[in-house]
Amino acid sequence: MATNPSEHLVDWLRDAHAMEQQAESMLEAMAGRLEHYPVLRNRIVEHIDETRWQRSQIEGCLARLGSGPSTMKDIGGKVMAFGQAVGGMVMSDEVVKGAMSGYVFENLEIASYTVLIETARRAGDLQTEQVCKQIIAQEMAMADWLLEHLPSTVEAFLSRSETPGVTADR
Amino acid sequence: MATNPSEHLVDWLRDAHAMEQQAESMLEAMAGRLEHYPVLRNRIVEHIDETRWQRSQIEGCLARLGSGPSTMKDIGGKVMAFGQAVGGMVMSDEVVKGAMSGYVFENLEIASYTVLIETARRAGDLQTEQVCKQIIAQEMAMADWLLEHLPSTVEAFLSRSETPGVTADR
Repeated sequence: MATNPSEHLVDWLRDAHAMEQQAESMLEAMAGRLEHYPVLRNRIVEHIDETRWQRSQIEGCLARLGSGPSTMKDIGGKVMAFGQAVGGMVMSDEVVKGAMSGYVFENLEIASYTVLIETARRAGDLQTEQVCKQIIAQEMAMADWLLEHLPSTVEAFLSRSETPGVTADR
Repeated sequence: MATNPSEHLVDWLRDAHAMEQQAESMLEAMAGRLEHYPVLRNRIVEHIDETRWQRSQIEGCLARLGSGPSTMKDIGGKVMAFGQAVGGMVMSDEVVKGAMSGYVFENLEIASYTVLIETARRAGDLQTEQVCKQIIAQEMAMADWLLEHLPSTVEAFLSRSETPGVTADR
């Protein structure tokens, strides 16, 4: 059973669309929970807007290829399982595991768009290639930001955590 | 309930130990499966050795802190859930999702050691800080390698995939 690059491209764009939907849910849950970490929350809120824009861009690519999220194959379950597991890492030290999970999820997105860029190139779909390059730049900026700010999040968590009567988790 | 940095350090070192155990299992499964992607397999085999060394280093840190994997708290289930979900992304396009999962897992490790380095610093544990800095350098090298080689893995997969009678998945 041979499959050409264009067929893989449509499949993987659908995966990416489901992934962006899940990213939005996760980021909204995190932003709603964080009370004492305003710098982290503000960056997450900013990335929620980017994530919505990315999803609409993927929908545009799928529409051009004669497909769309309405015919999206049922990979939702698999992506959800991944996101829940990433979310399941959220233990008592919620803000630290949350920031870690966010970074890990960004890197799932970076891997996905790296695959899509190569696949679009092989399928000769220049427009999708360009869209994915714009998106991956945003994901890389977010991943870099999260890793760069992880030590200060840990430091703030550890300070709050050793102070009696202060909530550290969110 | 106040918790000091040293207590968090022991907890998170135990998490890291469980994570390295899972990394070894995942990498062994991947290396055993890959038949037609020797470059990727060789790098994975190399990283299995590094992963074993990392686990022994973490055991050394825990022993110095009067703890050890024998008293490891039961986070195994949570890490396993994460690993299984990452593994669950392995669909029909196994080698591509496998390489993606490997990259995502490396970034979970990078986030974990970033947290540990800051926590060891705050706990004044210079030796653990140094060990974690050595480990994170290996994880970053592996993550960079996997991302850099992802397009060529995709290209090889797409070529095999469009050739009738050829296995592309592994």
